[in-house]
Amino acid sequence: GRARVISTEPLPNSEAEWKRLVKTTYIGQDGVTRTWEHAERTTRPKGSDFDGVSVIAILGKDTGREILLEKQYRPPLDRICIELPAGLVDKGETAEQAAVRELKEETGYVAQALTTSPIMFNDPGFCNTNFKVVEVSVDMSLPENQELKPELEENEFIEVFSVKLVDLWDECVKWEAQGYALDARLASFAKGIQIAK
Amino acid sequence: GRARVISTEPLPNSEAEWKRLVKTTYIGQDGVTRTWEHAERTTRPKGSDFDGVSVIAILGKDTGREILLEKQYRPPLDRICIELPAGLVDKGETAEQAAVRELKEETGYVAQALTTSPIMFNDPGFCNTNFKVVEVSVDMSLPENQELKPELEENEFIEVFSVKLVDLWDECVKWEAQGYALDARLASFAKGIQIAK
Ligand SMILES: Nc1ncnc2c1[nH]c(=O)n2[C@H]1C[C@H](O)[C@@H](COP(=O)(O)OP(=O)(O)O)O1
Ligand SMILES: Nc1ncnc2c1[nH]c(=O)n2[C@H]1C[C@H](O)[C@@H](COP(=O)(O)OP(=O)(O)O)O1
Repeated sequence: GRARVISTEPLPNSEAEWKRLVKTTYIGQDGVTRTWEHAERTTRPKGSDFDGVSVIAILGKDTGREILLEKQYRPPLDRICIELPAGLVDKGETAEQAAVRELKEETGYVAQALTTSPIMFNDPGFCNTNFKVVEVSVDMSLPENQELKPELEENEFIEVFSVKLVDLWDECVKWEAQGYALDARLASFAKGIQIAK
Repeated sequence: GRARVISTEPLPNSEAEWKRLVKTTYIGQDGVTRTWEHAERTTRPKGSDFDGVSVIAILGKDTGREILLEKQYRPPLDRICIELPAGLVDKGETAEQAAVRELKEETGYVAQALTTSPIMFNDPGFCNTNFKVVEVSVDMSLPENQELKPELEENEFIEVFSVKLVDLWDECVKWEAQGYALDARLASFAKGIQIAK
């Protein structure tokens, strides 16, 4: 069946488990005190300064370099969204460990972390949610990477696919026309590739 | 003076003007009914399917192509964040009109819209906030673009600058080391440029 929203209602902070709405009082650079409304995750591990990781996994295929992507129904959008593999960091975990674990769980691919980005903030006027991007290498000759065994949660439905890196922006435009939602981190990355060409 | 947070407290939806926390009941593709917590802006104009725009303005300088950027204190992060020029769309406005207007207000540059992207979702599991990216051209020979006259709100403090497009990723890494926060759309765009090189 096709996933779909039935209803949306206001949620009091007191009944929320994963998110909360807050008001911050701050002093501006002009010395004036003002307030700002924003949203947060309640799940960032104590001692961590970021919420999660995204994974750039480039697969060396006969036809060229392909990037690993996911299709996932997102209730806040009531649409299937195209995104990089991603997930929240667990307590005590490094960004590299979270990236390798999430990639394995969501796609089945066994990878090694290569580089880790600075922290990136998704929507700085709206919320403090943030993540690091980890580039990984995937050894396609490993037996685990030929017979993939993802380990999804009972409420996770993720379709894994890959596209040529050089075509990524054109594909984004096509996906929107087909009714998919686009993740901004993925689409911005694609725009960078396109503009650099 | 340096802007800074004094305090942050939970905010009930009933007292919030700009944002709200919601719970959505949805049917998954397995036919099971579940709920999802997320956040929204209350400001999206009726009839619009996006909240705002980001602007890619590339300035032709003697030294090469430079991208126009902003530094702005963000209360949700309690830090100065480096971002693309951006803003919310007004009722009845197209993405192109919003981009040209916001760029003029925030930076003083007078521009013309060239291309408009699909809608991009900032954080699809967290919220429905979204935007379009508009690429604009800036005619540096216009008198308005030599003596810039931004028109900021009384609570807006924005520093405008530009960096070479080819150095954007290396600059992002340096900015984090200097204590700046990085916007994810900008940093992902920079990563795309870097990976395409
Ligand atoms: N106290 C407040 N709290 C939250 N939003 C506010 C606000 N006051 C206020 O004007 N806004 C709204 C109205 C502003 O237009 C909007 C700016 O939001 P952004 O996330 O900075 O958007 P961007 O510029 O596109 O990144 O926030
Ligand atoms: N009902 C619910 N509402 C909100 N968050 C929930 C949730 N149930 C649940 O498990 N979560 C939390 C726990 C999940 O780990 C998290 C997934 O959030 P994401 O935004 O999809 O993160 P990404 O994968 O990095 O894009 O949401």
